[in-house]
Amino acid sequence: MTRLERMRQKMAEAGIADFYCRDISNVRWLTGFENVFDDEPAHLAFVTPGTSVLHTDSRYTDAASRAAQGTPWIIDGEAATHAKWAAQGFERFHEQRGSEPGRAVCRFGIEDSMPLSEFRALEAAFAGNRFAPELVEASDFVRGLRAVKDEAEIAAMRAAQRITDAAFEHICGFMRVGMTEREVQLELEETMRRMGAEGLAFSSIVASGPNGAAPHSIPGERRLQDGDMVVMDFGARRGGYCSDMTRTVCMGHATEESKRVFAAVRAANEAVEAMLRPGVTGKEAHELAERVLDEHGFGGKMGHGLGHGVGIDIHELPNLSPRNSKPLVPGNVVTVEPGVYLPGALGCRLEDFGVITEDGFMVFTQSTHELAII
Amino acid sequence: MTRLERMRQKMAEAGIADFYCRDISNVRWLTGFENVFDDEPAHLAFVTPGTSVLHTDSRYTDAASRAAQGTPWIIDGEAATHAKWAAQGFERFHEQRGSEPGRAVCRFGIEDSMPLSEFRALEAAFAGNRFAPELVEASDFVRGLRAVKDEAEIAAMRAAQRITDAAFEHICGFMRVGMTEREVQLELEETMRRMGAEGLAFSSIVASGPNGAAPHSIPGERRLQDGDMVVMDFGARRGGYCSDMTRTVCMGHATEESKRVFAAVRAANEAVEAMLRPGVTGKEAHELAERVLDEHGFGGKMGHGLGHGVGIDIHELPNLSPRNSKPLVPGNVVTVEPGVYLPGALGCRLEDFGVITEDGFMVFTQSTHELAII
Repeated sequence: MTRLERMRQKMAEAGIADFYCRDISNVRWLTGFENVFDDEPAHLAFVTPGTSVLHTDSRYTDAASRAAQGTPWIIDGEAATHAKWAAQGFERFHEQRGSEPGRAVCRFGIEDSMPLSEFRALEAAFAGNRFAPELVEASDFVRGLRAVKDEAEIAAMRAAQRITDAAFEHICGFMRVGMTEREVQLELEETMRRMGAEGLAFSSIVASGPNGAAPHSIPGERRLQDGDMVVMDFGARRGGYCSDMTRTVCMGHATEESKRVFAAVRAANEAVEAMLRPGVTGKEAHELAERVLDEHGFGGKMGHGLGHGVGIDIHELPNLSPRNSKPLVPGNVVTVEPGVYLPGALGCRLEDFGVITEDGFMVFTQSTHELAII
Repeated sequence: MTRLERMRQKMAEAGIADFYCRDISNVRWLTGFENVFDDEPAHLAFVTPGTSVLHTDSRYTDAASRAAQGTPWIIDGEAATHAKWAAQGFERFHEQRGSEPGRAVCRFGIEDSMPLSEFRALEAAFAGNRFAPELVEASDFVRGLRAVKDEAEIAAMRAAQRITDAAFEHICGFMRVGMTEREVQLELEETMRRMGAEGLAFSSIVASGPNGAAPHSIPGERRLQDGDMVVMDFGARRGGYCSDMTRTVCMGHATEESKRVFAAVRAANEAVEAMLRPGVTGKEAHELAERVLDEHGFGGKMGHGLGHGVGIDIHELPNLSPRNSKPLVPGNVVTVEPGVYLPGALGCRLEDFGVITEDGFMVFTQSTHELAII
């Protein structure tokens, strides 16, 4: 099934006649257009059983019209707010159709991620209509569909990961005791760009020694020291899709503590990667990782979810976390990133990502799980 | 006045007792914390006449607590959603105070930029309370305050612009006929980072020849040709603040058309920069630019607003556009970026940014307005 077919099937199941999609990543996914969108949320993808329209503005109509050739998408650059455009079109459609006027002519799906101001604008736009719908506030409607990737998406993420693996190899040859975290970060990010990344999946983390104990550390002026563990969490963007990997290396030598922590994290990572398959829940995966860390003497030292979906956005569905008891299905792309954080001392994380297949988990990440000593 | 004092004055004027601030840039501005926040909107800045609390999660409490030392901010890492945390605190406060129970105990400001889902969560959190407020959906409440910059903010933007000017000088020595737009973009962005930018203000535009006619062109594989005009729009981030500049250069030689277009755009830029002062409206500035372009034979060829505010975000208030009839005030930091776009042929834009002073406009951008031929 195409993405639009999957969308319409889900709309039919939910009894939704029209869907008003404003989230920029959802718009990107639904249309499948490349090289049209930037970060500005300036677009509306409007889907009904019979039509699919991108309502955009004059800055984007040329590029969108080129991208739409040969697709079912109509590009409409009418100079009106998305809300007014949708309300007027709704009025016209139901007039022509001869629908019964009213305030709940049909169910009209909206994203509950939209700004409150846009919701109010939509209410106001429909207020003067003879025909108005029931607004259905949907959570993760399109994001839910995006959690199952198609072949083209998997190919894009593998390409992004090849760049990321190559950048890791490069950085291992580049890092030296005495460099700052920031210097390592710059080199890592430039390398990914030089190797063909369109951009970064997120701002890279290079966290050395005690800084590694904060999972969201911002790379700074701290210099790498002999005996440090250095957590590097980074990803590229390629073909509109993200990669995500973390490796932790030791500078100069590995202390006994570093080795114990690393062995625990690696064991947790590998146990989970071996058990992932359709039917396993995010909760079960997370709990297995916690159990393995506990067996190695590091129970309760992770403090974050085990993994998350990846795609157009760096954080997508499904999550591998205690709160997700839905079974994984083929096509889910997830990270597996157990970590141990010892405040004041060190942090260690080992992250791969890959796709749930018919009978297992295919890892995209090709870099070794051995502890690198640099 | 401090930022919190300005905030409380505005709250008092609007009759708002509590303000619930979730926008990450607003949180950053209100607290003034550096090196605490990343892009995740994981924080709530809660301001009342007597207290200012940052409600955050365990990933950020250490860094936030360090940054809060010596400030009026309290850091609260309680593991609850922001909505529940606020509703429970509200209940406790009014119980202790002996307020009259009810559904509109006071006016409680929220940002209408918040996701609809969070608005619903807030309604739900208050639903079970004995004490609940009237939720006041405010537009641009904190953003409005942010439109007037203080000395530290101006210093940060001048520092960001110094990097940007230096990167422009570098790129003029680097660009050659035959390079792709993408190669030029990569070099430009790396240069800014190497020169001390923490990041980019936005993804840079390098648009050559006919690509320049699309104001939001994405740099690609087109190679620079002799006679091309090349639009470069780029900015750095430093100390948490953005810079923004555009220069248009000619490759090899300037055609007669390029010279005419450039002269028009430059005249529009300089006319506006000479007239900007407190009391002038964004509309007047925009209209002057349109008039000058028209006098040069390029009326109606701009197609976008003349400029916008800059600060923590690349697009802030106030706008220099037909829709802004509010007078500018000292401390407003704005871009001045007239452009002419001739579809199929070329584009040209000349952008500086600076601050409205007591009696004029101080431009941060130091790069020349002369047409560079490379």
